[in-house]
Amino acid sequence: MSSISHIKPEIRILGIDDSALISDQILIVGAFFRGGEWLDGVMSSRITRDGMDGTETIINMTTSSKHYGQIRVIMLDGVTYGGFNPVDIVRIHEATGISVIVLMRALPDLDMIRAALEHLPQSRERMRIIQRAGAITRVVTKDVSNPVFIQCAGIDTDTACQIVTLAATRSNIPEPLRVAHLIATGIICGESCGKA
Amino acid sequence: MSSISHIKPEIRILGIDDSALISDQILIVGAFFRGGEWLDGVMSSRITRDGMDGTETIINMTTSSKHYGQIRVIMLDGVTYGGFNPVDIVRIHEATGISVIVLMRALPDLDMIRAALEHLPQSRERMRIIQRAGAITRVVTKDVSNPVFIQCAGIDTDTACQIVTLAATRSNIPEPLRVAHLIATGIICGESCGKA
Repeated sequence: MSSISHIKPEIRILGIDDSALISDQILIVGAFFRGGEWLDGVMSSRITRDGMDGTETIINMTTSSKHYGQIRVIMLDGVTYGGFNPVDIVRIHEATGISVIVLMRALPDLDMIRAALEHLPQSRERMRIIQRAGAITRVVTKDVSNPVFIQCAGIDTDTACQIVTLAATRSNIPEPLRVAHLIATGIICGESCGKA
Repeated sequence: MSSISHIKPEIRILGIDDSALISDQILIVGAFFRGGEWLDGVMSSRITRDGMDGTETIINMTTSSKHYGQIRVIMLDGVTYGGFNPVDIVRIHEATGISVIVLMRALPDLDMIRAALEHLPQSRERMRIIQRAGAITRVVTKDVSNPVFIQCAGIDTDTACQIVTLAATRSNIPEPLRVAHLIATGIICGESCGKA
């Protein structure tokens, strides 16, 4: 479990989001933040659309960063990137030593995911990775009428909820993820767009 | 001259920076900011390395943005982008109706610029555009020992200095430009880096 005993307002968080599916190599963007306050670095990499390289690419992007030693939390936007490229948060925590928090805007529909995965190779392995993210907890951040949902690895749920709330300074989404999304869509689509 | 009679802390600023010269088409990134506080949008485009399309590309990126009607100031990092692609700030102001502020970390060495331009076509036209940016003013922002220098179009110098100071919340560089730089280098180089 995490060694984050006291949460500093400027806790360093790496928020990672992907871009639109307009090619086979999907841009992922890491926004390195001080708490929910300000951007202190940007990193990027590419993963294969509907591939199986998401987990290792995120691990490599994180551990090769000059900020690696400072990052206390990795925040992910769901556990599938670049289509249905599944991200193994337990493996990311084990390989990086960093706590992982997955954020979702709504509860995932596992039946729908399972049906979609049937059309892809290694569908069982993908489902296993997705389910490995574990228990889901509801968190109210900035907007009481618009809760979010989290899963985590290497950190207790209470601490994860506190960090998510601390970092959601501008909207109900933590800043590192909101900004990673703006960057990824702004670069790939020419202009950033909101997320439903 | 500018109609910015009262400067609101959340004045919308578009900071534009370019990326490293690793191809013939250079990424430029626009960071749409609320004052010096937070990022509210990202836009991107490409210009030709050492080309002559910088001015029109910046005009098109700005006027085609969904944020166009909100942008009060365009901040540029110098007046050459993508190598020696010169940016005409008077033309940008006239075409967009938006005030333009150019920021420099040091006084430009016009003799060195002139010598470098000699190796490029249309060197006189490039020099004319660069010199069109006009008078240079020294501004002390966050760091007294590290002043910056500005040029402007469509806005009086006093107001421009106030806006630059207001937006330099994290360093001596206004946030819209600091963040545009982090994004452009983070996307093209894999990780963002500081600027001398």
